[in-house]
Amino acid sequence: MAEIIEISSPEDPRLSDFRDLRDVALRKSIDASEGLFLAEGAKVVRRAASKGYQARSFLMAPRWVEELSDVLAAHEAPVYVMSEAMVEKITGYHVHRGALASFARPELAPAPEIVAGVRGEHRRIVVLEDLVDDGNIGLVFRNAAALGINAILLTDRAADPLYRRSIKTSMGNVFNVPWTRVRGLEDALAVLRGDGYVPVALTLTDDSITLDELVAKDLPRLAFVFGTEGAGVHPKTEQQVDHCVRIPMEAGVDSLNVAAAAAVTFYATRPR
Amino acid sequence: MAEIIEISSPEDPRLSDFRDLRDVALRKSIDASEGLFLAEGAKVVRRAASKGYQARSFLMAPRWVEELSDVLAAHEAPVYVMSEAMVEKITGYHVHRGALASFARPELAPAPEIVAGVRGEHRRIVVLEDLVDDGNIGLVFRNAAALGINAILLTDRAADPLYRRSIKTSMGNVFNVPWTRVRGLEDALAVLRGDGYVPVALTLTDDSITLDELVAKDLPRLAFVFGTEGAGVHPKTEQQVDHCVRIPMEAGVDSLNVAAAAAVTFYATRPR
Repeated sequence: MAEIIEISSPEDPRLSDFRDLRDVALRKSIDASEGLFLAEGAKVVRRAASKGYQARSFLMAPRWVEELSDVLAAHEAPVYVMSEAMVEKITGYHVHRGALASFARPELAPAPEIVAGVRGEHRRIVVLEDLVDDGNIGLVFRNAAALGINAILLTDRAADPLYRRSIKTSMGNVFNVPWTRVRGLEDALAVLRGDGYVPVALTLTDDSITLDELVAKDLPRLAFVFGTEGAGVHPKTEQQVDHCVRIPMEAGVDSLNVAAAAAVTFYATRPR
Repeated sequence: MAEIIEISSPEDPRLSDFRDLRDVALRKSIDASEGLFLAEGAKVVRRAASKGYQARSFLMAPRWVEELSDVLAAHEAPVYVMSEAMVEKITGYHVHRGALASFARPELAPAPEIVAGVRGEHRRIVVLEDLVDDGNIGLVFRNAAALGINAILLTDRAADPLYRRSIKTSMGNVFNVPWTRVRGLEDALAVLRGDGYVPVALTLTDDSITLDELVAKDLPRLAFVFGTEGAGVHPKTEQQVDHCVRIPMEAGVDSLNVAAAAAVTFYATRPR
């Protein structure tokens, strides 16, 4: 059972996990070096807690204590309670969802373990190659969770699924889809091929098959590689996958963004 | 031919179109009352100009004058040239795309004219019912342009496709898809039905057909109604359309966001 602690000063040193949330650069460095991540909003706090993440501490206005009582009962971490105004003062912005929690960053499982954990006749794994925008990472997780993707592998240079904005745009779905890091694309492809996956890269090149043509192949185990914003997958990656796949588009339009392309791809290749 | 005017003071009253871009509320009111909209970035400025929008003025650092010389030659509006630092001072933020233009807001065509302007055997029109987020409006336009949507109708309460953030997230595609306002959903449906369109609403209700079932109907003229963020289409709207349509999703996931749902819908129902 978590201990409820009323806080009277915004300077209280026990609140360090929650300070200055608006300072993106500072927070990224704190979150990484302290090995923590933050969940914002009762729903997201609940989702992280239900997936077995270990709470370090909770911070909330009084009205959330009851709403989250079952979650708080299941954790040992302290619950810092204070006025909405003080929550705002500490975090640096209006926390309209009213409750926050800091969790310990879990150790990531090795990619072979994540891949081996996927079950079922139709298996779909996503590889995010150097996707650098937190918001996009979250949106891809949200689409993946909604449309039946089994796991996500991120290269070292891809953004952090447990960063605030990723969690937010994912609507907490970064906790619903198993994921881990790979050193680079070669490592991901080796693991995936070893388990019978056919890797394909989503690109805009004309030297590619259409998404319809991919669907017609009816492949039971597919791995989709999405590249970085703007430039897309690396030219070398296009050589390493089994197929380059394009979503046919109207002439003169640059492209879909990666979240939209992911949604279309996941939907089109879903098991039927 | 536009006149090139070097600006030496950030207080110059001729720059009023471009002031305080970071103040969202202020800008929304200026843009509406002055009847202007802003294009940011050489590519977007070029796209708006090429679609016949009337430039009021241009603002840019010297290096963009040559790059945009053909665009500037085709307009009478003044070109205010100044250092990057002064551009930043006036607009209130780092304009990393370096060139801006203000354009007169065009008078919107009546909905029957927009609908009658659509040609082809397969016709697809989108209705955005009270979609209030500028960023989402832009993303829907981007997806619509990429995936062959012919026109977009927005209810009165929907956000502004010509607001800065809409233009930005659309990558300038708000200039590529014909659009106009309708007073409310009834007006939109009357016009669409009059031209042989079958209106459907994208919803999460179980009392609906799947997107696959809609595709199987092979309807030549389709109108897709998307509702507001969070709540979705109004309950009344569900009664007024011919079909409610859902994108099948995994259990326990709330929904796709409207941009992802739009991308999936447009792709799945494209002419084949």
